Amino acid sequence: MITVSVDLGERSYPIHIGADLIGRTELFAPHIAGSAVTIVTNTTVEPLYGEKLRAALAPLGKQVSTVVLPDGEAHKNWETLNGVFDALLAAHADRKTTLIALGGGVIGDMTGFAAACYMRGVPFIQVPTTLLSQVDSSVGGKTGINHPLGKNMIGAFYQPLAVVADTAVLRTLPERELAAGIAEVIKTAAIADAPFFDWIEANIGALNGCDGEALAHAIKRCCEIKASVVSADEREGGLRAILNFGHTFGHAIEAGLGYGEWLHGEAVGCGMTMAADLSVRLGHLDDASRKRLVSIVAAARLPIRAPALGETRYIDLMKSDKKAEAGTVKFVLLKRIGEPLMDSAPEDALRATLSASV
Amino acid sequence: MITVSVDLGERSYPIHIGADLIGRTELFAPHIAGSAVTIVTNTTVEPLYGEKLRAALAPLGKQVSTVVLPDGEAHKNWETLNGVFDALLAAHADRKTTLIALGGGVIGDMTGFAAACYMRGVPFIQVPTTLLSQVDSSVGGKTGINHPLGKNMIGAFYQPLAVVADTAVLRTLPERELAAGIAEVIKTAAIADAPFFDWIEANIGALNGCDGEALAHAIKRCCEIKASVVSADEREGGLRAILNFGHTFGHAIEAGLGYGEWLHGEAVGCGMTMAADLSVRLGHLDDASRKRLVSIVAAARLPIRAPALGETRYIDLMKSDKKAEAGTVKFVLLKRIGEPLMDSAPEDALRATLSASV
Repeated sequence: MITVSVDLGERSYPIHIGADLIGRTELFAPHIAGSAVTIVTNTTVEPLYGEKLRAALAPLGKQVSTVVLPDGEAHKNWETLNGVFDALLAAHADRKTTLIALGGGVIGDMTGFAAACYMRGVPFIQVPTTLLSQVDSSVGGKTGINHPLGKNMIGAFYQPLAVVADTAVLRTLPERELAAGIAEVIKTAAIADAPFFDWIEANIGALNGCDGEALAHAIKRCCEIKASVVSADEREGGLRAILNFGHTFGHAIEAGLGYGEWLHGEAVGCGMTMAADLSVRLGHLDDASRKRLVSIVAAARLPIRAPALGETRYIDLMKSDKKAEAGTVKFVLLKRIGEPLMDSAPEDALRATLSASV
Repeated sequence: MITVSVDLGERSYPIHIGADLIGRTELFAPHIAGSAVTIVTNTTVEPLYGEKLRAALAPLGKQVSTVVLPDGEAHKNWETLNGVFDALLAAHADRKTTLIALGGGVIGDMTGFAAACYMRGVPFIQVPTTLLSQVDSSVGGKTGINHPLGKNMIGAFYQPLAVVADTAVLRTLPERELAAGIAEVIKTAAIADAPFFDWIEANIGALNGCDGEALAHAIKRCCEIKASVVSADEREGGLRAILNFGHTFGHAIEAGLGYGEWLHGEAVGCGMTMAADLSVRLGHLDDASRKRLVSIVAAARLPIRAPALGETRYIDLMKSDKKAEAGTVKFVLLKRIGEPLMDSAPEDALRATLSASV
């Protein structure tokens, strides 16, 4: 087991990474102060790992209940979130009730937001069960739900007490979900760590093949990089924005197609190739580096052609992105592999990228 | 104009108190950094003060929009809140858009929660237009909405950048609303400041008569007391709980009757007499002090008899209160006027209080 520490002063927390961690009582024990625990999970994950987690919690003598939500990004909305509140209130859950998110990014984001809002804040623990959520959404404290007009528009910054990333569960992950996680691994290397990008190129076969050691290294490195960025900028004032590489285009794809059509990681994979294209057009990046990025995205079995939503629709969707300011979209672009920059784009360059990417 | 400072480190903010402050551009100017402002108000307040506030903002050259919500506690729910999000998203409101809450406690709580959640947090300013919100809900950062199973169950701690408490607007306040505000003034004195309680007894006629100077003094003193309590305990770990004097009974009354039937301040007024009754039964308070409290609540034209919900229903409602922990209700009680204590109560004493209060 490897432990990465996220340093946020009094809100610091550990991320434990390794095989078969869900069953280890001692990883949960230090973080459950009250008398009750509510596990929030979904219809896919509950039959796979619900019992294992409850067995790990049993020796602690807490009152454990489970809320099972429908699976998928399409349910990341107020109605589903309200189902969590209904269950907590019906069970008289108090301010010390600990919520445990058992599932992927959608479960993590919704459970975290429920924890942030229920009685104005209760403790929570993340048990991410997808590669994407292990490398990405379990670090950073971003929680929230979607709105019909935009992804993650309603939410809070709220930190878990601990993250337990069990690599053994990735063996039950569908191939598309694994690839979506690898997209965030590529993203992290692309914006922050050129040698890690080289390592991914050399190990993409092992990652695609769900090799435990390769995955553990990738998760650890992503968590370390993201933790250092988030520690420096918890509330996304500046630096943290670089983590959104590929996301402005990616969010537009997700919103334009309707949430759940493409996986978040698939949209980010394609979005990175679009951001690289724009970087070249604006003179920031050389074309050889763009091609390396496109190749590794393709090698990870991720889409490299964007859906044909129409240029104007893309632009409208990007203008309503959270990162837009007074209608101006700031893109995360690349100077070279491992080095990002933020820039806005003239509409003709943007349209050229959109036209070239479809 | 008097200014009270709420000291919360980097989240510190000023409360300006005085007549005709809504029209003063210079009170808003330092707190609006972005290019857009959205005023959130209701159907009652908009025709009275909407234009005045927009005129004060006009010289700042910001893009100003207004969202008008239905009036009343019955609308303090997700559906209404979502109306604010819809309007913000439709207007492409960005992360620097400032929300201004123009209205009473319901508007303040909902606007604050909308500001806390929209894109995970945008700036907001409070312009409370009821006595209750001027003395109470504009200090402390508590924001939120109701759930059918409990009041303020979904929310966040989120601080405004400034509060502008205009005493001139209180002249248009209905008598019931004024009395509901005086309930919180009495509460604040009862838990923290015996000389202030004496002052209220001597000046209750002036307060009932909406005397500007008396009201300004009462607002200032309440804000000072609440600010000092909140500064010491921003997230309600301990001390801050004393501000809930009268609220455990009061929330049960509001939830039991259905939100909006009694005003919050009316329920707190009656709830304080119930908490005082329980304090006497548990041997903490002498009966003469209880009688002083009942007299001043009655003199403020507030109810001193509780609605007949049934004892068991009262107890169930109190057990699902946020302040309950593992089913045990901690009451804020009085040792003497100006000095609170926290205690749980045996069920027979609680039933005796409920029976004596109806």
